Amino acid sequence: MVKINSYLYNVGFDNSFMNVSNIVSEYKKNNPKSNIVSLGVGDVSRPIVKSVIKEMHKAVDDLSNMKTFKGYGASYGYDFLKSKILEVEYNNSFSLNEIYISNGTKTDVSNILELFDINSKVLICDPLYPIYKDGATCLNRDIYYTTTDDNFIPLVPKEKYDIIYLCSPNNPTGVCYTYKELECWVKYALKNNSVILYDNVYSAFIESKDAVKSIYEIKDARKVAIEFKSFSKNASFTGVRCSYYIIPNDIYEGINELWKRRTINRFNGSDYIAQVGAFKTFDESSQKEIKRNINYYKYNSKLLRNSFTSMGFEFYGGIDSPFIWVKINKNMKSMEYFEFLLNKLNIIVIPGIVFGKKGDKYFRVSALAPRKSIIEAIERMKKYYEKEK
Amino acid sequence: MVKINSYLYNVGFDNSFMNVSNIVSEYKKNNPKSNIVSLGVGDVSRPIVKSVIKEMHKAVDDLSNMKTFKGYGASYGYDFLKSKILEVEYNNSFSLNEIYISNGTKTDVSNILELFDINSKVLICDPLYPIYKDGATCLNRDIYYTTTDDNFIPLVPKEKYDIIYLCSPNNPTGVCYTYKELECWVKYALKNNSVILYDNVYSAFIESKDAVKSIYEIKDARKVAIEFKSFSKNASFTGVRCSYYIIPNDIYEGINELWKRRTINRFNGSDYIAQVGAFKTFDESSQKEIKRNINYYKYNSKLLRNSFTSMGFEFYGGIDSPFIWVKINKNMKSMEYFEFLLNKLNIIVIPGIVFGKKGDKYFRVSALAPRKSIIEAIERMKKYYEKEK
Repeated sequence: MVKINSYLYNVGFDNSFMNVSNIVSEYKKNNPKSNIVSLGVGDVSRPIVKSVIKEMHKAVDDLSNMKTFKGYGASYGYDFLKSKILEVEYNNSFSLNEIYISNGTKTDVSNILELFDINSKVLICDPLYPIYKDGATCLNRDIYYTTTDDNFIPLVPKEKYDIIYLCSPNNPTGVCYTYKELECWVKYALKNNSVILYDNVYSAFIESKDAVKSIYEIKDARKVAIEFKSFSKNASFTGVRCSYYIIPNDIYEGINELWKRRTINRFNGSDYIAQVGAFKTFDESSQKEIKRNINYYKYNSKLLRNSFTSMGFEFYGGIDSPFIWVKINKNMKSMEYFEFLLNKLNIIVIPGIVFGKKGDKYFRVSALAPRKSIIEAIERMKKYYEKEK
Repeated sequence: MVKINSYLYNVGFDNSFMNVSNIVSEYKKNNPKSNIVSLGVGDVSRPIVKSVIKEMHKAVDDLSNMKTFKGYGASYGYDFLKSKILEVEYNNSFSLNEIYISNGTKTDVSNILELFDINSKVLICDPLYPIYKDGATCLNRDIYYTTTDDNFIPLVPKEKYDIIYLCSPNNPTGVCYTYKELECWVKYALKNNSVILYDNVYSAFIESKDAVKSIYEIKDARKVAIEFKSFSKNASFTGVRCSYYIIPNDIYEGINELWKRRTINRFNGSDYIAQVGAFKTFDESSQKEIKRNINYYKYNSKLLRNSFTSMGFEFYGGIDSPFIWVKINKNMKSMEYFEFLLNKLNIIVIPGIVFGKKGDKYFRVSALAPRKSIIEAIERMKKYYEKEK
């Protein structure tokens, strides 16, 4: 028999999104008449805004005529989009050579491991978005864990690790780190010659004054951090696929020449229509519409937080992030509570164990769900918990 | 300093597409008034056909309304597209579980290495599309080489290798393998528990009766072969990005369950607009238009072959493939000849050394170039070679 990559057997299954979705499918099959509402998935419930749609139509038309046709673009993305992002998001503090357009942060955060020694020790914080651990596992990397303090701020370890995954605003806890909370990680990385892989795809939701909007706000972060962002959540590009990341030249001399050599061989560029659409998201009229969508989610979030408060739940997040991380108020582990909510109230949430052992007393809900689902789920929970009193 | 993946330093540079393109850019900079024609790049010169464009517009509109909005799709692609491909291309001889939609064969042919043991011995044929070697290098794989006979048919080795890259219709030689020529590889793989990674992105160009259109025509190939195809060349999707590949269940029990576990963690699906467009390429009206484009390239190819014949060049391919592989008729290696054509005649071709040591007496031209460039390049070469007589 052909030898299979044995690491794939270690990719999370029992406590995975996939298993959660299998359980839901099974339940739906057995209860076809049930009226299920989902606060589970992180997908959006607002469409792409009109001005961006209009621009995407133009891009489609460009492809119908050789005078305007765009075939293979640069593997690292079109300059028009890269320049725009650098200007709007980074105040031109990085060069075109330091930014890459791609087709999804999920892919990017694992692909970037190809840049570093294969024996690098990868540090992941429990609880955390499971893609980091499972992606790194697919790529045969060895993974180590740290955990968080009681407020879900990741604890800096004493030992040396080479690659550190951080996510802020955090998935699943919804917590956004402050300057001080991030500064200790940057200092750790500087001291240990480590690299921080900083997943920042929810930054559009940040509103707290002391929340850090980009890791590069931290002194010397550009010597140690790679930041990942995406158009998925703010611009509703979950089906369109467009993401970007910054590799500062300051990390390692020639790092971007090396990564371009890799990327030219491993990727043929993000699709043209997506890049044209992404570019348009930055203009004034689009930003107005996008802001309205973000506010829609933020209002969802407020409804959820108010309800969890009134029901007496302890919870985190939901201010600088679309996610709320709720402590289970029954004597149940997270899988059991998830199944209880599914079977009893027909509500889907994500059990905390999906994000790591420390998550097992929690569940995650997403304010990205449609308003109707949010309200319906709240009503059902309130009704249940009132009866229980 | 952070430890960089040292394998990246082995990724081809001196004899790479990248270097060729750098030399061309340098020449253009120094000779801004030169009238350069390119037969180099493999990009298309026909736009996306009208009926597909129309459908892509519909897909864009779907994204502007929540009733029709498509966010995250399955990581392995939409069923509507998978079913269609299986029906049209594979006569339904594979199940939905065995096909994956992706965003480019360049990425796919290297990503698939994640499925196999990291110490697998990878066999590549010299000359061959350099992405196989460079992609595998990025992923820290050890690479071995075989070569071809005088007709550029790859020679089956005596030793055991685990993973074998084959490409037919071949890039760069344009040769398409026959049943017999492929059968010996399938037998080799069966005997050695190897897997064949079969790059078949140029199959739309096949016209010879004895040329194999899919490796699964070979008896028992479904026990050993993964086939890769794409919409890039036939449907002009080079800027849109949509590809697919088949992993037969017969290769290894549970192989697709394992690969789905990997893919759900490593990829968020190909973009919706691309998949809708790709689906439309299969209908009758689109096929008529697409056939017209293929015939355009085929006529280019005929012009090139006739001219190379009349100029006395020895060459391969150009019948079942858009590429023609031409033997250099001067006492020059391929880089030197490439620079001669660039400097003297302002014609871009790809020097054979880019594809491996055995390619160093050859250069590759592409019939995918615009008709105007083809005719202009032919005229310049004819003029030069007539003078030389």
